[in-house]
Parts: sequence; structure tokens; C-alpha cells
Amino acid sequence: MSRWEPNARGRLAEAALELYSERGYEQTTVAEIARRAGLTERTFFRHYTDKREVLFGGSGALQELFVGAVAEAPESAAPIDAIAAGLEAVSAMFVGRREQSRRRQTVIAGNAELQERELIKLASLAAALGGALRGRGVTEPAASLTAEAGVAVFKVGFERWIAPAEEREMASLMRESLDELRAVTAGGRA
Amino acid sequence: MSRWEPNARGRLAEAALELYSERGYEQTTVAEIARRAGLTERTFFRHYTDKREVLFGGSGALQELFVGAVAEAPESAAPIDAIAAGLEAVSAMFVGRREQSRRRQTVIAGNAELQERELIKLASLAAALGGALRGRGVTEPAASLTAEAGVAVFKVGFERWIAPAEEREMASLMRESLDELRAVTAGGRA
Repeated sequence: MSRWEPNARGRLAEAALELYSERGYEQTTVAEIARRAGLTERTFFRHYTDKREVLFGGSGALQELFVGAVAEAPESAAPIDAIAAGLEAVSAMFVGRREQSRRRQTVIAGNAELQERELIKLASLAAALGGALRGRGVTEPAASLTAEAGVAVFKVGFERWIAPAEEREMASLMRESLDELRAVTAGGRA
Repeated sequence: MSRWEPNARGRLAEAALELYSERGYEQTTVAEIARRAGLTERTFFRHYTDKREVLFGGSGALQELFVGAVAEAPESAAPIDAIAAGLEAVSAMFVGRREQSRRRQTVIAGNAELQERELIKLASLAAALGGALRGRGVTEPAASLTAEAGVAVFKVGFERWIAPAEEREMASLMRESLDELRAVTAGGRA
């Protein structure tokens, strides 16, 4: 990153999303993304491996934030409350990014390869959360189940947040979804 | 399928798993699989699209069985109990197949492309279970959350079932995992 290219990473991501939405993901080249962002292809490749990774540039930060919040939740917090703390942290990261997230989701929904990449992202998140919970002394299978439950809530809460006309904040949708998961698992014969 | 090739599908799957375990997935060709099964390549392609699909030949049946059991659970059953009925049905399907499942898992763990295919299988299962629950009149987001919870239990229960030295039946590990999920979500501040 040099001072002649302020926020190159963000500009490339925004340009890519614009082009993918306008003319389709398959039809867009790295050269076009760089041009739209007013940058060179060389700069593009300093920030991203390929045009697919532009859409997943935030995955590492999301996982780090989620896992960090779980790891740092008060020692007294139950596993599911550590997950709830992670969901709060992640929600804060998405404030002001609903429209961008909607456009990204539309692009991903239109391409099988991108959907696979998204599934890998969530599987990696579940594995990392399981590790963070074991780090808190949670034993198996509780750690893996709580981690999977956390990813399920994140997935469903996120879908609700980007649904057309939805205006509630992500944080409250995540809390609602977690409460709903508690309710459905508490239902039935148990 | 002709009467000169009894159980060709199963013989091909068994031959493929043997070869993948012996010499690696990447190193095995369709010709070798057919030869090991005492069949022709042409017969192979009558049953499977490619050498990857041999490992996922049971996915359709698994999903059908799981979804069918959810759909046909008593009308009075809570959503999570319909999922529990699905887990029972699926467990019955795996009786006597633990060693085969262990070998399959080892092959899949060694190849990124196969792991992706496995994630797609589980995502497809979650979507289908959500649909079956909506068909039972369960509203959103409860339907999606219950479906995701069901897949989480299946995933964790399955991993426990194929763990080295594990001898308990899949059905009881699934029940235990579901109870554990209930316990972890019931924990905490709620």
C-alpha cells in the first residue's frame, strides 16, 4: 500500500461488486475491475489473488472478530453466551453495510463456485469457533455443537438481515434468531 | 442394469473405496475401478458421472430418507421431534456400514475438492429439511433454524460414530448429540 493509492483494497472491492452486479461475475475481468477503481492490475494482485477472492476479502476479519469475542468472553459465560458475544461483535462490523451485503449475496447466489466458497467460509468459521470453545475448557461434543449452533444462527440471522425491506439492525436479528433456536430445541418431548 | 452385472453399483463403490484407500483418490482412474470390480468402464459410466460421484452415491438416498421421515412424522410432533425422527431413519440406513464410512471419511479428509462436495451435500440437506418443515406448517425463521440444528446434530453425531474405537450405535449417538444441543442452547442467560 502506498500513499498514492489510498484505500485501494476497498476501492477494488467496491468496483468489483459494481461490475459483478452490472454485467455478471463471469463476464468481468480483473483488468476491468482495476480500471473502474482507477488502479492498475498490478495493484489488484497486490491485494487479491483473483476476482473470486475480492468477494471474500472480509472473511478473515469476520472469523477473527467472531472467534476473538468468543475467546475473550467472561470466564463465567456459558458456551452459548460466548457465542452470543461473538454474534454481537460480528454485527457491529456490518453496521452500514447492508446494501453492499445484499448486492454481494445476489452475485454469490448466481454462481455455484461462489456458493461453494461461501460454504467453505462457514465450515471454517464453525471449526474455528469449536477451537475457541475448547480453548475455554468446553469439552466435546458440546464445543462442536455450540459452534455449529452459532454458525446456524449467524447464517439465518444474516439472511434475515439482508432480506428485502428488512430494516432492523443485525444485532437484534441475531439475538432473535438465537432465542428462536433456543425455543425450537427446547420444544418437543424433552 | 442387466442380469449379467448383479449389484454393479455397489461393487463399483466398494472397488473405488478400496483403491482410494490403497493408492489415493487422485491416483485412481475410472478404468482401474471398473477392472477391480470386474466390470467395464462403460458400466461404470452407466452408474456414476465420474470418480468423485462414487463417494456420494448415497447422498440422494440419505437426503430422501431424512426429509421423508421429517415430512411423515406425526402431525402433533414438534419441529425438533420431526428432525429427531429423521435422525432415527438415517441411523437405520447406516447400520453395518461403520467401517466403510470410516474409510470414506479418510479419503474425503485428504482432498479439498471432496471436502467441498461434502459441504454442498450438507447445505443441500439443510435446505431440503427446511422445506420439509415449512411443508409441516413451521414458519420462518424457526424452520431454517431447526433444519440447521438437525444438520449440526447429524454432522457431530456422525463424526462421533466413526471416531476410532467408538462402538455405540449411530442412533444412540444422534440422540445423545441432540440432547447435548438442547443442553448447550438452554444454558446461559436465557
